[in-house]
Amino acid sequence: MKIYDTKTAPTPRRVRIFLAEKSIPMEYVEVDLQKGENLSKEMREKNPIGKIPILELDDGTCISESDAICAYFEALQPEPFLFGESALEKGQVAMWQRQVEFGLFMQVGMCFQHTTGYFKDRMKPIKEYGVEAGINAAKFLKLLNRQLEQNQFIAGDKFSIADITAMCSIDFARVIDVRVKDEYTALQAWYDKVSARPSAKA
Amino acid sequence: MKIYDTKTAPTPRRVRIFLAEKSIPMEYVEVDLQKGENLSKEMREKNPIGKIPILELDDGTCISESDAICAYFEALQPEPFLFGESALEKGQVAMWQRQVEFGLFMQVGMCFQHTTGYFKDRMKPIKEYGVEAGINAAKFLKLLNRQLEQNQFIAGDKFSIADITAMCSIDFARVIDVRVKDEYTALQAWYDKVSARPSAKA
Repeated sequence: MKIYDTKTAPTPRRVRIFLAEKSIPMEYVEVDLQKGENLSKEMREKNPIGKIPILELDDGTCISESDAICAYFEALQPEPFLFGESALEKGQVAMWQRQVEFGLFMQVGMCFQHTTGYFKDRMKPIKEYGVEAGINAAKFLKLLNRQLEQNQFIAGDKFSIADITAMCSIDFARVIDVRVKDEYTALQAWYDKVSARPSAKA
Repeated sequence: MKIYDTKTAPTPRRVRIFLAEKSIPMEYVEVDLQKGENLSKEMREKNPIGKIPILELDDGTCISESDAICAYFEALQPEPFLFGESALEKGQVAMWQRQVEFGLFMQVGMCFQHTTGYFKDRMKPIKEYGVEAGINAAKFLKLLNRQLEQNQFIAGDKFSIADITAMCSIDFARVIDVRVKDEYTALQAWYDKVSARPSAKA
């Protein structure tokens, strides 16, 4: 099996970190997003919506969406549990994963795409919306800091996929100049801790 | 346990249908979104981002986000499997759930919020972005039709949470006047089939 990947993009990085945490080896095939290699006929057959990453199994079956690729590997090799172990943990991890994705990851991505025009050949950037998304992203960091004042990791006392998503979001947020404020000491301490895990280099 | 719910909103409807499919009884507490009851101090303690639905367990623990509440009940009572049974099914359901959420459900919601100003007391509507989101939603229906030309249900040959999300999206899309075109016969046949399930009335 292999994963069609883009080293510099924040979304596929989440999968690389997830697999590193589970010590699952993988073959990665680099796809140049900026050149639009992901939009070729061949790639559209693997994922009609033209996004990266895509996991291709040995029989040619493809699974796209970072979160879905991670769900596949979590089912295949549950430990270490990154989606939670008990029903309650699974619910709490899914809740935080979702809130971080909508409240931070997506806001950063939308701010980037709509204010820089990076993908203007394939979408219509609306600057005013991008600016608003950036404001939302900055606001969400305050909420995350509050959560981390009382919890070791984002979804509670164990490292999970929500930590991976949040770390990738914060690293990517540099491109829109949204950073962890000095006063967010709990968030910064958490960030330093998760960034020091070997998986963060994946 | 109980769920804070809003009968007329598309997101919590997904949870009601999910629980009906699993025959899990539930106490629902109605929250008036338009009046902003979800933004009260009491509700913010249950879910800081002020969204509905929220599952409250008997010990007071809260899980918000529709998808997360469903993940909790899937872990608690796996059958009938609505997130897939095998690893491959889990991956495929997660992929379609995600694509339907981003490509359809969210686009419909953003079009509604940004073009009507329904929540203008709590967000900044940007009409141009709303219009674009509506165009994206309409485009996604074409992709769904193609998938349903070759599959009985959205994620393959079994009913799943992706079907619930897609059906709720299509019903909600009436408010932005995006409808299944006559030529999308596979999508319409699927829609009629899933809408006829008793759970659709939940």
